[in-house]
Amino acid sequence: MTPRFEESFKDLKVTVLAGGVGGAKLLVGLDKTLNPGKLNAIVNTGDDFFHFGLHIAPDIDSVCYALAGLSDPVHGWGRKDESWQVLEELRRIGAPDWFALGDKDLAWQLERQRLLNAGMSLTEVTEHFCATFGIPSRVLPMCDEPAPTRIRTQNGEWLGFQDYFVRQKCKPEVAEISLTGGKKIAPSQAAERALREADLVIFAPSNPWVSIDPILSLKGVREILNEKVVVAVSPIIQNSALKGPAAKMFRELGIMPSSEAVREHYIDLLDGFVFDDLDQEDSKKWQASDIISESFQTIMKDEKDKVALSEAVISLGARILVEK
Amino acid sequence: MTPRFEESFKDLKVTVLAGGVGGAKLLVGLDKTLNPGKLNAIVNTGDDFFHFGLHIAPDIDSVCYALAGLSDPVHGWGRKDESWQVLEELRRIGAPDWFALGDKDLAWQLERQRLLNAGMSLTEVTEHFCATFGIPSRVLPMCDEPAPTRIRTQNGEWLGFQDYFVRQKCKPEVAEISLTGGKKIAPSQAAERALREADLVIFAPSNPWVSIDPILSLKGVREILNEKVVVAVSPIIQNSALKGPAAKMFRELGIMPSSEAVREHYIDLLDGFVFDDLDQEDSKKWQASDIISESFQTIMKDEKDKVALSEAVISLGARILVEK
Repeated sequence: MTPRFEESFKDLKVTVLAGGVGGAKLLVGLDKTLNPGKLNAIVNTGDDFFHFGLHIAPDIDSVCYALAGLSDPVHGWGRKDESWQVLEELRRIGAPDWFALGDKDLAWQLERQRLLNAGMSLTEVTEHFCATFGIPSRVLPMCDEPAPTRIRTQNGEWLGFQDYFVRQKCKPEVAEISLTGGKKIAPSQAAERALREADLVIFAPSNPWVSIDPILSLKGVREILNEKVVVAVSPIIQNSALKGPAAKMFRELGIMPSSEAVREHYIDLLDGFVFDDLDQEDSKKWQASDIISESFQTIMKDEKDKVALSEAVISLGARILVEK
Repeated sequence: MTPRFEESFKDLKVTVLAGGVGGAKLLVGLDKTLNPGKLNAIVNTGDDFFHFGLHIAPDIDSVCYALAGLSDPVHGWGRKDESWQVLEELRRIGAPDWFALGDKDLAWQLERQRLLNAGMSLTEVTEHFCATFGIPSRVLPMCDEPAPTRIRTQNGEWLGFQDYFVRQKCKPEVAEISLTGGKKIAPSQAAERALREADLVIFAPSNPWVSIDPILSLKGVREILNEKVVVAVSPIIQNSALKGPAAKMFRELGIMPSSEAVREHYIDLLDGFVFDDLDQEDSKKWQASDIISESFQTIMKDEKDKVALSEAVISLGARILVEK
């Protein structure tokens, strides 16, 4: 049994590996749960791409907008109270309109590119963003170099991630996933430090294949994690994903999507695993494992849900820390 | 006396050297006066700069928006029916907001950068723009390479043109003007061809120092113009400029701004010169010259004025062509 959440847990140094929308929800809960300065989010940049010459970082933006309270509550990505003047004009002049950049969102993309051109790293630009919007937690791009995720479809074609994900709406069947542009890339210094200094590492309920794996594939990350207490939250509930192509990817790669499959995916790294209450019955049939697995309500509809799940995950981590 | 405008003049091949706002007005008149395909505009790109990583070409845009009937009638630059969502957000996040890019205008800047990144030249991108907006005349950037105009102030500081022109509102006193980044640059092939094939070349009523001189400074341009009938329209009326810093520049460079000074500035290239009726009295005191100078109403308040001035300038050119 996981202990009740204790006041002292708020001072645990927690580092989260996260993608965009699903990860952002848990991060909002953790940000509200932990004391200021205790939360580090290492965010996937495998989705980043250049659009109109601008460096777009969808996962970083989803996380930052969420932590700043600026997220569009309907989509999960982009800004609330958004307008679409530029996109409408792009459409009118026959320019690509498949990636929906709102006007407010675009302003930030422009400013990011300006700062990058001025010599700032993606890490520094993201820090500047957090400062501008008063985000107390640290949001860290997994690395400062380009590390694009590419998808090979069953037709043998290689697609950039946003091409697959947004333009083609995840329709092509996935045959293979190439991470970090096929190169061995180091995490940013800040991301590596956040891992080393963490009391507890959490894998957010993000897509294992294209949100968490890119971070895990960085040089030295698995080695650091082997020394850490790691708890993952399953993004799969009842054999499907709340959002995005995670379940579809599992299937296309020949694996039945399930919480157990997620646990298997991370098996050599995990100490704890949180899956949804809806999979409790199912979990009785799971293969035995040393990983301490607990069910909880992982669907986060509101802030209360986000905080409750955050407290549960931290409590499980704290229990493992004590036992270790 | 300039002959009446004749129907046959509409088939003259006219190539105009132009900057932004003032040049654009005359170009609209010429575009309406000449038969389709007869007008080529070679437009200054010395004002171009990178802003948020995007290639901004203010003079080309002013000309294209004007020819497409999309200009903001109040400012002369930018689009009519414009919105400012992105600029307002840039201001909110503390990003540079000194260059007023409206949302519709910005869409085009994004698309231009995308096409440049895809390997198109500025000439090709501008041609695409004209096709998109149904502009029958050809708008030609003076060159495809970067050719930045820089301003040395009386403090000895070198400023990029837009920094001087927009950010500092032309306030610094000009000591020296450096054209085409201090390098000898060739005109684009299309611009050179438009000059060679022209029956008549017109210098639009644009700033001589920073709109027309950049084009004249390109490799071989003066040599081609020596073989052509060239008519200039004065941008100075009653010792001042309708818009922009032309008169101020004349003064700071030690020259009394006047139509005569404009004629002097171009003296070795001109065959004809059109200045404003308001300077008629003044013109009686001008130094004698072989240049055929005629006064006309050069302030273009509406389309009628633009067409009337266009017809007058073409008629003067036609008369010189016949006499030559």
